[in-house]
Formats: sequence, structure tokens, C-alpha cells
Amino acid sequence: MAIPTKTLAVRLFEYGGPEKLIFGEYDLPPLGTRDVLVKNFAGSVSRWDVKYRAGDLARYQLPGRAAFPLPQQLGREAAGEVVAAGNAVTRFKPGDRVIGVTHPEDLDSVEAARGLGNLSRNLAIPGHQAFGSYAQYLVRDERMWLPLPDGIDLEQAGVALWPFSSSHRVVSERLKVRLGDSVLVTGASGGMGQATLQLCKLAGARVIATTRHAVKAKVLHELGADAAVVTADTEGARAEVLALTGGEGVDHAVDYTGNPELLRFLATVMRLGGSLVISSEQGSEPMPFRAADMIRLELNLLGIRGARMIDMLTVLKLLGGGRIKTRIAARFALARVGEAHALLESSPDLVGRIVVLPWA
Amino acid sequence: MAIPTKTLAVRLFEYGGPEKLIFGEYDLPPLGTRDVLVKNFAGSVSRWDVKYRAGDLARYQLPGRAAFPLPQQLGREAAGEVVAAGNAVTRFKPGDRVIGVTHPEDLDSVEAARGLGNLSRNLAIPGHQAFGSYAQYLVRDERMWLPLPDGIDLEQAGVALWPFSSSHRVVSERLKVRLGDSVLVTGASGGMGQATLQLCKLAGARVIATTRHAVKAKVLHELGADAAVVTADTEGARAEVLALTGGEGVDHAVDYTGNPELLRFLATVMRLGGSLVISSEQGSEPMPFRAADMIRLELNLLGIRGARMIDMLTVLKLLGGGRIKTRIAARFALARVGEAHALLESSPDLVGRIVVLPWA
Amino acid sequence: MAIPTKTLAVRLFEYGGPEKLIFGEYDLPPLGTRDVLVKNFAGSVSRWDVKYRAGDLARYQLPGRAAFPLPQQLGREAAGEVVAAGNAVTRFKPGDRVIGVTHPEDLDSVEAARGLGNLSRNLAIPGHQAFGSYAQYLVRDERMWLPLPDGIDLEQAGVALWPFSSSHRVVSERLKVRLGDSVLVTGASGGMGQATLQLCKLAGARVIATTRHAVKAKVLHELGADAAVVTADTEGARAEVLALTGGEGVDHAVDYTGNPELLRFLATVMRLGGSLVISSEQGSEPMPFRAADMIRLELNLLGIRGARMIDMLTVLKLLGGGRIKTRIAARFALARVGEAHALLESSPDLVGRIVVLPWA
Amino acid sequence: MAIPTKTLAVRLFEYGGPEKLIFGEYDLPPLGTRDVLVKNFAGSVSRWDVKYRAGDLARYQLPGRAAFPLPQQLGREAAGEVVAAGNAVTRFKPGDRVIGVTHPEDLDSVEAARGLGNLSRNLAIPGHQAFGSYAQYLVRDERMWLPLPDGIDLEQAGVALWPFSSSHRVVSERLKVRLGDSVLVTGASGGMGQATLQLCKLAGARVIATTRHAVKAKVLHELGADAAVVTADTEGARAEVLALTGGEGVDHAVDYTGNPELLRFLATVMRLGGSLVISSEQGSEPMPFRAADMIRLELNLLGIRGARMIDMLTVLKLLGGGRIKTRIAARFALARVGEAHALLESSPDLVGRIVVLPWA
Repeated sequence: MAIPTKTLAVRLFEYGGPEKLIFGEYDLPPLGTRDVLVKNFAGSVSRWDVKYRAGDLARYQLPGRAAFPLPQQLGREAAGEVVAAGNAVTRFKPGDRVIGVTHPEDLDSVEAARGLGNLSRNLAIPGHQAFGSYAQYLVRDERMWLPLPDGIDLEQAGVALWPFSSSHRVVSERLKVRLGDSVLVTGASGGMGQATLQLCKLAGARVIATTRHAVKAKVLHELGADAAVVTADTEGARAEVLALTGGEGVDHAVDYTGNPELLRFLATVMRLGGSLVISSEQGSEPMPFRAADMIRLELNLLGIRGARMIDMLTVLKLLGGGRIKTRIAARFALARVGEAHALLESSPDLVGRIVVLPWA
Repeated sequence: MAIPTKTLAVRLFEYGGPEKLIFGEYDLPPLGTRDVLVKNFAGSVSRWDVKYRAGDLARYQLPGRAAFPLPQQLGREAAGEVVAAGNAVTRFKPGDRVIGVTHPEDLDSVEAARGLGNLSRNLAIPGHQAFGSYAQYLVRDERMWLPLPDGIDLEQAGVALWPFSSSHRVVSERLKVRLGDSVLVTGASGGMGQATLQLCKLAGARVIATTRHAVKAKVLHELGADAAVVTADTEGARAEVLALTGGEGVDHAVDYTGNPELLRFLATVMRLGGSLVISSEQGSEPMPFRAADMIRLELNLLGIRGARMIDMLTVLKLLGGGRIKTRIAARFALARVGEAHALLESSPDLVGRIVVLPWA
Repeated sequence: MAIPTKTLAVRLFEYGGPEKLIFGEYDLPPLGTRDVLVKNFAGSVSRWDVKYRAGDLARYQLPGRAAFPLPQQLGREAAGEVVAAGNAVTRFKPGDRVIGVTHPEDLDSVEAARGLGNLSRNLAIPGHQAFGSYAQYLVRDERMWLPLPDGIDLEQAGVALWPFSSSHRVVSERLKVRLGDSVLVTGASGGMGQATLQLCKLAGARVIATTRHAVKAKVLHELGADAAVVTADTEGARAEVLALTGGEGVDHAVDYTGNPELLRFLATVMRLGGSLVISSEQGSEPMPFRAADMIRLELNLLGIRGARMIDMLTVLKLLGGGRIKTRIAARFALARVGEAHALLESSPDLVGRIVVLPWA
Repeated sequence: MAIPTKTLAVRLFEYGGPEKLIFGEYDLPPLGTRDVLVKNFAGSVSRWDVKYRAGDLARYQLPGRAAFPLPQQLGREAAGEVVAAGNAVTRFKPGDRVIGVTHPEDLDSVEAARGLGNLSRNLAIPGHQAFGSYAQYLVRDERMWLPLPDGIDLEQAGVALWPFSSSHRVVSERLKVRLGDSVLVTGASGGMGQATLQLCKLAGARVIATTRHAVKAKVLHELGADAAVVTADTEGARAEVLALTGGEGVDHAVDYTGNPELLRFLATVMRLGGSLVISSEQGSEPMPFRAADMIRLELNLLGIRGARMIDMLTVLKLLGGGRIKTRIAARFALARVGEAHALLESSPDLVGRIVVLPWA
């Protein structure tokens, strides 16, 4: 097969509505000596893609991350098959199944030396600072790919690595969840929430998921939650969590909403010495925690940003063993990625992730 | 020697000014089978004693702690010599030098099983829920005493265990300070601050102490700080901390002020992935940290309350080896404890602790 | 109901064969103020009981443990219902379901202060230094009982706490097994082995169990092992373990055999930086590990002795949630405990534990 | 200045006596785009160099390390100044002071992802698999150099990084030595032993050093040991260690001798739950530890191999702060490196390291 030099892709040249996502044929970059050319079979559309497209970029401005560039080819996740490899490539050969690195680290950084490569600077994250996966073919340095174990469905691979790797960092490193622990998860029906829920269960914990609306409790149980607590009635919800934990409160909590009321609620249901992971924000007000809360509970309030190589490798092991699975809400062909964006914008409560299938 | 049945002591029968501290001769409780009667040679007067005396008790209302009782004999720390021991006492005999347990744990609690005995409930802390050390003789269960190693000055023993044990928990457990780390300490000239500073130095860390007033920088250096940063000029202070840490920010910070402006400052000088211990509060506003700070820095915000037996045992080892030392600001005879209270109230910046010498 | 003062029980007055286990009616000790009298519905017979009975006591001579006394009432595990409680008892009342503490700690010890209460001295372990559960009624200090959660079958409770608590210490503390790890277990069909296998699976690990005999592989799979490797052919077994772990070797291994050949094998299948728990001994030769193995692999060789309160509490949570289960090999009435001993002695490969049902 | 293309150096073309070290002028490799050319002011001669030279290479045959090549330019450590940098070099410019990386990691390895880059494979360690520092000029990839902080003496830099980085890994990672801990070090007067002793002291521990000969105790005290125990009389030595540790035994021990008798001794002076690092070997017999020792003590027996980037970075911080210092036994000009080898061979008890000064 001749090495393709062009690809069908969807690109963004200016911020705006879904109509700014321009489907067309574009040139591929030349294949560098360390590059790998991959035929991309599956990727995702996420709420981050929507924010980027709309120009709502405040949250991307992290220390050490490049400004948000245009034109851009969105899409952080990719899974496919190697078509060609540069002369100096040692890890891959044509025909290999691969998955795109979603959380690159600067391995030479002091952060990586500390085991915090997820915080390293000067990263070019696919779909953020570098070209993402809204395309049929992708050309990237060999370090931006990992081998995809046999037996993993490509569609599943295309939507797994981002949420599961971040969640794995939350569960295994930030919270060090252990057998028999209890974990409360807010926003559990979202992509990160579902991944966290699954990993907590796999690690032997009990998961209490919260929702504002009683009608959504059923979905949370379907997703594997041991209990679903409706937080509309704060006092009732608190009593319920205490009853579920022998009166003690939960060992751990993870917030995926940034909702100040929900955070205030969390401070009332943590056990003494418990840990609460802050992963999301709404607005720019201070979080509703007082120093007295920190002292009274000896609370651990833990930030989280990204994931590390070890998180991705572990997720691939779990994927390969068929132990984690992503719920798919909808599938779109590449040409119809704009419709995927529109769906996300009109469906704040969509349960499951959106797959892009460039060859469908 | 006949076993004394009365003691000179200072007691509080109602809240109010220093004049409410009533010096007199009081009955000792009978010596129970597990009790030890100790001749108390040294104790402390602390700012907590002053708050208690004044009836400013909000901070004492921790979960699982008994309400604040009257009459009370204040004084959390004590060091002395065993005079008599009940029949069932196995650990001590007359003549043994002892130090009063400042941080009792409920060893049968689930918190203790978790290694968090400092958070256990139903504690009777001397000078808080139980009678403290403002007396010549003290009768307490044998578990409320620890052997005082030879070579420790009793006066030093009387002011060491409270601040150093809590600080040890901060340094060794909450922050896990390691060789070569940098630690920023606010309120470093206070009792806890000085203890923390010494323990950080002993653990091989570099300490940056802050002060609002340039005139106090000299004292901080005398106390062992590697650098003293004046925070009146926030921007300048920030630049200085970054310069001291190779541009990275500090690995750890400990706040002993509760001052919101200082906390805001701290969020600007932490390195990525750093840890900040919250130990004090002012008012009841939320702390000035936004979710975005937690995420951007992957910050660890850690509460601290009390200390554990292992902290006290380690402090006693360090005391016995002559490796830690408390600066004494003033010494008072038992009858003049009220003057000690007055001194503390009139000297917000007093550097060093106040010793009570019941037999002076 | 009148408080019983006598109990049917099986006692040992001199070492010897199963016939030395004397069934009869014996006086109960008077109920002390902190004692709880329990009607015992289920306990276990273990290989340790057999060794004790036979006078093969070398392994009981641990530092800080009392010499092995006679007469003795064997049986480390018990589960039943409170019949009466002394005046000072605060934790239990008649009718409460309880389980006997199998791993008491000396909470006042320096070992407990370090979080290593399992190593504390001066312990009176039921069935070892104190009277065990071969009886219809048991009188023990309230600290020697824990509440048994609803929904736990008494028979299961009677055989769960010993092996699962020790295994929990291995899995959660010594190895810190995490989601996605691989664990090799030798002697996996024994009581400890089965418990370890279950806990590893619950913690999200993959378990490779070994056996010398191909015919036993089926049982290992039934017990939940992800793979069963036959070690008769050492080279083949090694190749198999490497294939199962992507060529790396296992993250962790636990040996429950003490077999030197098996230990030698383990040193060839550990990954770099892996951990190997030593739990059993055979003979008194040095283990077959060379300093070069330690260095080459950067191996962690970890001893294990007993369990802590937190292990027991976690096991009770898991039992209460129906997440662990013990295979029962046989059930015996109290009068027939000698037959249970005989069965163990004649069945080195018995899979499952033996229950004593004192009221059957 | 013109870029040099040749260097005076000492090379080894065949194994044998010190006379096989051939001093002469040799070609430098061309400066690659990522290479840095350094004028080397100081390096070391170590006992490993001697073994290599003599062809005693068994210990170099670690998994994943290339066979030991000839011709070779020995010398693992180097410190100097950048003379020229390739076009693609981003970290250094002429005039920068640098120190040679002694412990390279394969950052793309699974071991590095696990935080165990020291165990990664395919490493080219200077003086082992790659050309070392017995030369006036050195050409290496920019990743093989680290910035040398101001204020560090070049001579000290030339002998610090190897022993201190490995020791830092022992102290901070393998043993996690904490404030107040006790550490026993055997072979404490050797290079690794001295470094370990200093780092333990800096971390707030007490160090007990052992020696076979009473006459060497004085040196151990000079080197900073809190106590020096003569192990010729095993029973007396044991009593002494117990007395020094309140009857408990030491928290940690590090063996730098591989001597079986000494290892046997160590098993008698560890506290319950203590940790013992195995760093050296003598012969190929099993270590003298029985499974019963592992269980009785709940011993942690820990291998150690190499160090990581974070260890080197921390050592550079400590060096820069003037907090660690290496005792120099002798200095040699480059042409006289053979004499340095001879000195090491004839002086088994030499205290201090040997510096090579290529420009002296």
C-alpha cells in the first residue's frame, strides 16, 4: 500500500458553533524518522472539544501548557492500526494495533523525576496543543502511541483511555482506594464519573453515587453504584450516607461537578480523616470549605490534573482483560462530527460517550 | 513520705479575666488502683488556656469531645516525679520521672485502628476535659503518663510535648517532609511554629519563615529559619520564595495563622503537587482557595488535629537526645499564673513559651 | 435465662493423639465486670490445633508470647450470641451477635503505637495462650469480642476471621496489592491461600496459583485463580508465568508452603522490584535467596506475622457485604472434635476448612 | 576557542593489572547535534573500576545491561565545564558547569513508569557500558549531564554523585528513614557507608556503625556515627545495640559488606518490623536468613540497585547547600590513574575516596 499523503479530516479554523468544524481533505505532514502513520478507526467527541470549538478556553490555560492554537484538529483519543513507520522507529511496525497517548509527559522534567509527570510543562496534548483524532490518518512521534493489546475492541479503545487514565490516577494514587473502602462520587453518570465508579468497584470499594434527581438513580445503579443518593433533600441525603457507612461518613469522595452546594454537602458526609478529590470547577468563587472543616475532620482536600504513563499502562491491562467497559451513547461518522457536538450541547445529561468512526 | 491528700492549685470556677484563676489548697481525688500521684515540677500556660478562661470556647467544640466543663484546673502539660502508685499500676513506681500525656487516644476506637487515634472521640484531654497541671500534685490514670528519659530538664519537659507532638504529626505524617525538601512556615515565631521549624530542620529540610514585619525577620533567623520572607509586599515576597526554590515554589507549607491574605499568598508560592497544612482558623469564612487552584497545582490541602502516641514517643526520644529545645519567654510560680495569662493577653507577639513552676 | 456456670467443652490435659482431647462438662469462670458470656455456635479446627495437641510447639515460641500452657481448650475462632455481660461492659448486651477476636493487640505497646500491634508482646491469643472455642459457652473480656454484622451466617463467621485477617494484612499492608497487579500464590488451596486468593481478586489483581500436581489445577480455578501453574516442571512453569505477565514476572508473590524448591522458583519469576511474602517455614535451613538475587531484582522479601484490629474490621465489612466466603470441608459436633483432628492428620491436601458446631 | 578533537585519556584494551591502563592521546567522537563537549576537571577511581580492569565482571552482569565492553575508558563520575554544544542542545551552553549523570534511566521503560527507572534495561552507564571519565574531554548526549549548582567545589562534585545518589535511594526510598529512627550501618567507613551515614544524620536519624576492629571505632565517630560497635564479640555487640535502642533493636540496617556472619548478627539486632537493606554480596551462598526469622521479626529484607534521577537531583541540592561532604583519601593526575588503582588494591581499609584531576 502506498503511504497516504492526504487524509479526510475535520478541522477548526475559527471559534464558533458546530458549523465551524470543516470536513475536508487535508495534507498529512511528511513522515519523520521517528513518526508513525496510523489509520485511525475510532476516537471520541467530548465536552472539552465543544468548549474548545466554542472558544471557551479559560480552563485550558494551565501553567506550562501552550496557548490554544488554531487551526486545530480536535479529538484527544484515537485507536487504529499502523500503516507506516519512520526509519528510526523501534517500537512499531505496519499492522500493529495502537492507541493514542492521551496523557503525554515530559519525561525529562523535574515533575516526572518526582513521579508527577502529569504535571510536567511543555506538553503537546493531542486535540489540545497538537492535532487530534478527527481524521482518517494520523502522523505522530512513536512515543505518542502505545501498543493496543489483542482482544480490545477498537471502538472501546477509542473512548477509554482519557477518562479511565484520569480516574485511575484518582483512585489508585490520589485516594489510594483500598478493599472495603467507601467512595462517594458526584457526577457519576458523566464520562469521568462512570470510569471512576468502575475502577472503585474493581478495587474492592463500595460506591455511593449522588444525583439531584430521583429519576436518575436507576441509571446509577445500572452503572454499578452500590447506592444512589438523591441530594435534592440535603438533610435526608446526609442521613442516608451516614446510614450506609455505619454512622461514620465516607472514606473518600470525588467531585466531578464543581457545584458549591454539593461540595458543602460533601463536607458533612466525610468521615474523620477522609479524602475529597477536587476535579471540577464552576465559576471562580472560593470553594465552600472553612479552615474549621479542615481541622475538625482532619480533611484531605486533593487536586487532580491529568494522568501518568503508569495510569495509561494499567488501564490498557484492564481493557485487555475485558474488565472495564465504556457505555456508548452515540456513534458518528467523521463527516458528521458537527452533529455530535450539537448533541452534546443539547443533552447536558447524556449518559455515555460519543464515538467517532472515521471509516464508517 | 505520707501520700498527700491536698494540693496547692489554681482553678477556674467561672469564665472571665485572669482574676478568675483562683489559687488555693484543694482536695486531691483518692488514689485509684490504676492511678499515679505525681509531684508536678513544670507545666505551661498557653493561649488556649487564655481562651478557655475567657469562655471563648468555640474551637474546643470538636466532634466527640465533651463540652467544656467548670470548675476546671487548666494546663495541658506537666512534668514531674511519681510520689505514689495504685495497687494495679504496672508501669511506674515512686521516684520515676514522668511527663503528662498531652494527646490521649481512645485506643479501642476505629480511628485508632486506622492509625488516626488523634481523631478518636470521648477523649478527656488534661486542661480541656480533665483537670490540668496548674497544681503541685496531680492524680491520673497510669496511661496518662509517660516515662521521662534521663537527662531531660524538667522545665523543658513541661513545655515541649504539646507543640512538638502536634508539629511532629505535621512534619512526619501529614507532610512526610524529606531530606532536601523546602517548607514554608507562617506564624513561625509562635509555639507551634517554632516546634515545626526545629523538626523540619532536623528532618533535613530547608525552612522559609514568613513575617509581616521586617523587624521580626531577625528572630526567625535566630530560631533557625534558613530564610525569612516579609509578606507585607506580596509580590516581592512571592518573587523571593520562587528565587529561594529555583523558580519552582515550595514543596510544603504550614499555616499557623488562619489569615486569609496569607493563605491566598501561599497558593501562589506552592510548587506543582505541593502540600499545604491548615492548622488555624480566623473567623468562619471559606478559605480563599478556588477549585481552579486545586486543579492547576494539583494541590494537597491537609487538615491537622492533635497528635498520636507515636508522635509523643518520638518527641521524647528527640528530647532525650537533646535535639530539640524550647525557648522560654517567662517563668511563673503557681500562685502567679494569672500574671502569665495577663502577659499573654498583652503580648500578641511574644516569642517563646511560658513555664509554670509549681514548686518555685 | 439463668446464667450458665458450666459448659460442655473439649480440653487438652497432656500432649498426644486425638484421644487426648477430652470432652466433658467443665466449670465456667465467674463473669467479671468487663466480661461477656457468649453462647458459641461455630468455631474451627485448624492444623495449628493439631500441632498444639501433638506438642509440636516450636513455632508458637514467638518473642513476647507466653509459653504454651496446659490444660488448654483449643480453637482460635468463635461466633455466637451474648448471653450475659458484666456490670462494666459497655459494648455488648444479651442477644448481640458477636465474633471472637482472633488477633488481639496490646494497644498500649510501642508496636501498636507504630501501627504494628500484630507484633505486640504479652498477647493471650484464644486457643494459644488463652482458652479457645472448643466449648458451648465462652467467657471473655469484652475487648475479645467484636460485633457480628447482620446477615453473616454464623457458620461462615466461625471459620473466616483467622485466615482472612492474616491474608488481609498480606494483601493490603505487606504487598499493598493494587488494581491490575499480578499475584502468585503458592499453597493456594489451603485456608490462608484461599483467603488470599479471594482478597487479591476483590482488590482487582490477577492471581496465578501454583500446584505441584496437574490434577489439582482444576480446584485452583474453581477457587477463583486466573491461572494455575504446575511447578513439577520448573522450566515450563517459569515460561508460563512469564507468558502470563508479558515477559516481566509477577508483581507480588506469597508463599504458604515454606518449600525451598518453590522459593527458589519464585526468585526466577518475580519482576524487577517485586515483593515476596514469607509466611511459612519448613525445617531450619536458610532460605534459598542469595544477596545477588536481592540486588539483581531489587527484591522485597517481607515477613508476615498475624493481623491487626483494622484487618479484622475490614474482614467483617467484607463478610457483612457477602463478598468473601469460606469453603467448608467438613462439619463436626463438639463431642467429635477428635475426629476432625484425625481427618486433618490423614488429609494433607484437604481443600476447605473444618467447622465445629458446639450445639449441633 | 577551537573545539578540541582529541583528548588525553586513560583507556583499557585488555583486562589485567594497573599497567593495562594506557595513558595517551585519543580521538574524541564528533559532536552530535544533541551532544555536549565537557572539559572534565574531576572524577573518581573506585573499587568497581579496579574490578572492571581486572576482568572480575560477574557483578556487572545485571539483567538488561549490555556485556562489559573493551576497549573501555573507565570512571563513572565527572564534573566540569561545557566547552561546546551541538545544534539541537537546549539545556546547556559553553561555560556552564556540569556534573555527569551517574545513574541514567531509560525514561520510556515500564520500570520508569513505575518509579523504578533505576531498574530499567538497556542503560549505558559511563565507565561501565559507555566511555567514562578518565579523560580531559568528554562528549556525551545532553541528557547525560546535569547542571552543577554554584558554590559546589568541582573536586567534591567529582566524587559525590555515585555514592550519595545510591545512598539517597537507600535512605529515602528503600528505608524511608524518619526523624528519630535508628539505623545500623555495616561497612560504614567505605564510600557508600560514609554517604549513607551522612544522609541518615541529615534525615534526623541516629546511626550505629559497626566495625570488626576496635581501632577503627575512632574513625567511625569522626565520620559522624553516634555509636561505633565492635562486632568481634558478637554477644557483646548485640547487647550494646540493644542498650542503644532501649532494648528494642534498630529500626533499620544497611549492609555494605555481604559478610554472612555480619548478616547473621543483623538478624539478632533488628526490632520487630524492622528493615534491612542488602547491597553487597560475598560468594554465592544463600544469605543466612531463615523463614522463621522473617516471620518472628516480620522482617523487611530489601534489595537495592542503583539510583534514580530524583536521587541525583536531591543530592545536587544537598551538595549545593554545602550539607554533604566527601572525605578525600588521595588525589591523582590523569597520567597516574594506575597508581590510584594500585593504592586501592593494597589498601582494603582506605577511608575516603580517590579523586582524579585530569588537568592537575
